[in-house]
Amino acid sequence: MTMTSSTHLSIDSDRLWSALMELARIGAYDDTATGLVGVDRQSLTDEDAAGRQLVIGWMKDAGLEVTIDELGTIFGRREGLEPDLAPVIAGSHIDSVATAGAFDGCLGVLGALEVVRSLNDAGLTTRRPLVIAAWTEEEGVRFGTDMLGSAVAAGRLTLDYAYELVDAAGLRLGDELVRIGFKGDRPARLDPPHAYVECHIEQGPVLADQGYAIGVVTGVQSISWQKITLHGRAAHAGTTPTELRVDAGLAAAQLVVRLREMVDSGEYGQLRATVGHLQTFPGIPSVVPDRAELTVDLRNPDDALMTQAEADLATYLETLPVLRVETKRMAKTAAVPFSERVQDAIAATAGSLDIPTMRLISGAGHDAQEMAAITPTAMIFVRGQYDGISHNPREYSTPEDCAAGITVLANTVLRLAAE
Amino acid sequence: MTMTSSTHLSIDSDRLWSALMELARIGAYDDTATGLVGVDRQSLTDEDAAGRQLVIGWMKDAGLEVTIDELGTIFGRREGLEPDLAPVIAGSHIDSVATAGAFDGCLGVLGALEVVRSLNDAGLTTRRPLVIAAWTEEEGVRFGTDMLGSAVAAGRLTLDYAYELVDAAGLRLGDELVRIGFKGDRPARLDPPHAYVECHIEQGPVLADQGYAIGVVTGVQSISWQKITLHGRAAHAGTTPTELRVDAGLAAAQLVVRLREMVDSGEYGQLRATVGHLQTFPGIPSVVPDRAELTVDLRNPDDALMTQAEADLATYLETLPVLRVETKRMAKTAAVPFSERVQDAIAATAGSLDIPTMRLISGAGHDAQEMAAITPTAMIFVRGQYDGISHNPREYSTPEDCAAGITVLANTVLRLAAE
Repeated sequence: MTMTSSTHLSIDSDRLWSALMELARIGAYDDTATGLVGVDRQSLTDEDAAGRQLVIGWMKDAGLEVTIDELGTIFGRREGLEPDLAPVIAGSHIDSVATAGAFDGCLGVLGALEVVRSLNDAGLTTRRPLVIAAWTEEEGVRFGTDMLGSAVAAGRLTLDYAYELVDAAGLRLGDELVRIGFKGDRPARLDPPHAYVECHIEQGPVLADQGYAIGVVTGVQSISWQKITLHGRAAHAGTTPTELRVDAGLAAAQLVVRLREMVDSGEYGQLRATVGHLQTFPGIPSVVPDRAELTVDLRNPDDALMTQAEADLATYLETLPVLRVETKRMAKTAAVPFSERVQDAIAATAGSLDIPTMRLISGAGHDAQEMAAITPTAMIFVRGQYDGISHNPREYSTPEDCAAGITVLANTVLRLAAE
Repeated sequence: MTMTSSTHLSIDSDRLWSALMELARIGAYDDTATGLVGVDRQSLTDEDAAGRQLVIGWMKDAGLEVTIDELGTIFGRREGLEPDLAPVIAGSHIDSVATAGAFDGCLGVLGALEVVRSLNDAGLTTRRPLVIAAWTEEEGVRFGTDMLGSAVAAGRLTLDYAYELVDAAGLRLGDELVRIGFKGDRPARLDPPHAYVECHIEQGPVLADQGYAIGVVTGVQSISWQKITLHGRAAHAGTTPTELRVDAGLAAAQLVVRLREMVDSGEYGQLRATVGHLQTFPGIPSVVPDRAELTVDLRNPDDALMTQAEADLATYLETLPVLRVETKRMAKTAAVPFSERVQDAIAATAGSLDIPTMRLISGAGHDAQEMAAITPTAMIFVRGQYDGISHNPREYSTPEDCAAGITVLANTVLRLAAE
């Protein structure tokens, strides 16, 4: 049997949910901060290895041909009617942060597995091959570079760069890969597939706020991280007249307020600005701070507007009433617009399933942004509960919303694989 | 020989300086932060005991009758022509903070000693007795309550309260007093003297900025310390739209800016406002802070304007865009205006010595503010170098400025003791 465009593939939402819950038991821990059971399955740890083995077992049970690349990324291939055509890849990651929930990344991998299982149940074969990818070290919490596996696969980073990364304990990534038995033979550089689709939890509040279970992701914002240190002059709070002060804390406060004014001005498009870390020194109630440290996180889907915001921020810093300003760039990534064609395929698929969608930008980084460099790419976001909290054991998406996302993934993949 | 109002007593500035430097050797340490030699002679430590013994020896050598009160405060009495008249007291303290210089407090005690030595050299006897006081635990760094000895002497705090204070190691003040041999017999409650005069370094930049060696202190400001905690909602910097954020750090910044606006408005007189401690939590670059902690230090020489500032601040806090505001009062002291008559005596004395003076408020607390409750009181401030830095080994006043201050002290004391 082959698919026609009017046929919809149904998935088994209970099976999907069971797989998510079973994988979450690997690396489970009691989280004292929340009183919940969290997941700690950082990349290339024993827990990650156990998670990988579980997923590979499921892939093989589903009849997939499993290969491991030189950086440990797992590929599970389901042959197509025309094996020589470039495959459609659906993927994400199963490594986690230290205080994770069950969904971040895993939904994309186990959702793609559920697509394959459902195709098997329906006895369907696609025109193009389908490949599930579970990328190595997406989180970057252990070795310091996020989206590592997909970045090497897409050619942005080299394999040697990845191998030489070390974790906080001084362990080398290349050695850890060998230790857990996941240094494979498949070349890390990936031949461009026909398309890449990733289903992921939103990790934000927009879908819940707007009342949608599913979002079509238009791209990933540009991200700029800076650490800014303002130097003033320590002075006694009681004895130093206001006009003789050089208050680093006041200047930091003015900067925080200014950043919000920049956002609210609308001059920088959809700019988001966050000062997550702000601290004054010496931090004594009766001493005017001689130093204030803060981080500035800027996000913008438009690179030109991001550049303008950074430039205007730099100009503003020069006007602050302090003795000296230090700025250190911590990170900068360009905006990644996703393929209009793949976005439209997702939206049309959801529409035909009577699942309403909205389009939204991704504020977080994802493997899809690396794949976008070599193939038409887009993402499906699934609504999160509790304001979309993530990287926290409270992270939660309902079984219904997960099933909706994977149903859209399944039928989008079918659509693309028929091309 | 008796004094006439046209006679001026000269002091020995070298002897004064030598005494300051010799006392500073007790508790001396190498300060790594500044590369200087600092002083750590906290109250009722072995170092404090050694400092006390040195000063008592000098007092006895100068012919003073030394008594120790129940709280360890040292009194050195020089008899007057009319012993039954209430004495004039000149004093300060010799205990120090952990990172002190040579001048804070010591100038007032050793300066009063120099007054006595100079009177001895000149063969002068005053009408009223003169008493030097070296108050116990002025700094409050060891047992947590500053101006302790003078507060008990003036009746604001009880002796039992003082005895039961414990230091960070759990040692009880009453026990430490016995251990170092300074629990005396003299009642801690002091009979009101005729007047109290204290010479102290300014610990601020005003005199240096205005070009005066000596200041006449008009009083001590009201001090209000609050710890304010703002509660917002943690959110992902990339995924959370600005309009859905409850950013505790932004609210803290708005508060800091608002405090400066209050100061600049002039509506609160000579209000000073300082946010010494400001910190956001969890303090991660990509997370909108769910909590911000800050301290607010307000100073005002006018109690009514201070009350108004506190009330307006409380009203403003209610308008901040956060979920919840916690405020905790850490300290509150009323403004203490000093005696106009004693201020005028100091100013007139300095004028007759051709030493220009300006009047200024004290931003820091001093034993004089406790004495002001029971006797006409004022203070003489001596200019500090390096922006008046204090509680730091860099604290420094020149020999010339110290001599000027003690010359004014000597002749003011003579004037008051002749009344």
